[in-house]
Amino acid sequence: MTGTLFGLGIGPGDPELITLKALNILKRVPVIAYMAADEGESFARSIAAPHLPGGQAEICVRTRMVAGNSPANETYDAYAEEIAVHLQNGQDVAVLCEGDPFFFGSFMYFFMRLAERFPVEVVPGVTSLTACAAEASFPLSSRNDILTVLPAPLPEDELERRLLDTDAAVIMKVGRHREKVIRVLEKLNLADNARYVERATLPEAKVCAVSDLERTEGPYFSMILVQKRGEPWK
Amino acid sequence: MTGTLFGLGIGPGDPELITLKALNILKRVPVIAYMAADEGESFARSIAAPHLPGGQAEICVRTRMVAGNSPANETYDAYAEEIAVHLQNGQDVAVLCEGDPFFFGSFMYFFMRLAERFPVEVVPGVTSLTACAAEASFPLSSRNDILTVLPAPLPEDELERRLLDTDAAVIMKVGRHREKVIRVLEKLNLADNARYVERATLPEAKVCAVSDLERTEGPYFSMILVQKRGEPWK
Repeated sequence: MTGTLFGLGIGPGDPELITLKALNILKRVPVIAYMAADEGESFARSIAAPHLPGGQAEICVRTRMVAGNSPANETYDAYAEEIAVHLQNGQDVAVLCEGDPFFFGSFMYFFMRLAERFPVEVVPGVTSLTACAAEASFPLSSRNDILTVLPAPLPEDELERRLLDTDAAVIMKVGRHREKVIRVLEKLNLADNARYVERATLPEAKVCAVSDLERTEGPYFSMILVQKRGEPWK
Repeated sequence: MTGTLFGLGIGPGDPELITLKALNILKRVPVIAYMAADEGESFARSIAAPHLPGGQAEICVRTRMVAGNSPANETYDAYAEEIAVHLQNGQDVAVLCEGDPFFFGSFMYFFMRLAERFPVEVVPGVTSLTACAAEASFPLSSRNDILTVLPAPLPEDELERRLLDTDAAVIMKVGRHREKVIRVLEKLNLADNARYVERATLPEAKVCAVSDLERTEGPYFSMILVQKRGEPWK
């Protein structure tokens, strides 16, 4: 009997924002895997750390990000095979996913390589989208709003066009695109309808108005929320 | 000292998909409030039920949905005042929110009435969006995808235009708009890129291809997920 591959949504950062379901699986699987950058600690592992029972095998998936591109396919191929060996031996493997496995996550790269060979179960998690809205006390969408999720690397004119054509928006991965995004929001007179959030739900979280934001590079885990109805709750 | 108003995201349906943070607050507040339709059980309360310690005061917010519209403002005014009395007496009140409080929820109606008078804390929850993706084993978005959340009540030509202009989409509240949505997807040749999901994460969950879907009215809690890159994981 082969093991099950779990895509485990462990939430946006605060270890208390893990679900009971993910926690139970996290504690009982013999093998965990998680993404990490080329160097340094894995954010996903740090979220799970307070909950780990100890004694589990760990696969740290180190990926070198090529400017703006995804890591090489060969990297994922190799790690997928490492995971496959455990599954073939009947051991369950949980891939720890920041936020949610299927919402702008890296789990897809393992899913596409392993889902036809092994049983897969995906446990949804709290995404950065609603974590940022909660952190900023910013009602994101209601009733029949159209909500658009926009990656900040989009070209400036495309960001502009799409912000014009939606009720609410979440601009993700603001990082080094901050100045461009601010410029678009100001041009559209939407700066007062927006809120900047970085590292939501962590102790070092930061929330501020777009007008108070420095026009410098920021962390990758930052977002700008936009609600064009303004602040209807006021 | 006044109490705190909690907007408590309790997840999409499976009681195990509540977060540790929401669970801890749920168990210790003296007063809980939840939405319910004009008649019958509250879905939010049923999600929380296995976790309730007993002995809490409960405010059941009964709202009469006027065809396609939000319940009357007067209804929310009255319930907000009922909640305010507890807060004024120093009692914390948790409003139980299906999914997430700020993602197409009703919590906003209380937030807008009470946030300037009382401390408010919002606890984000797992939304139906990622719950449906997990239920259907459907990777929703990755890399620099543009993801659009579309309410199914939109006019047919607007649904069509917006589906043409996005990488991925989540069509919410499909319910009695099912036939229209199927027609649009077929016209755009996107039926094979879509998956229908109802009552995600509950025992009675249903997932099917759009081509297998009856052209009848369905439950309110149903969604169609669209990923125009097809099934890139295959």
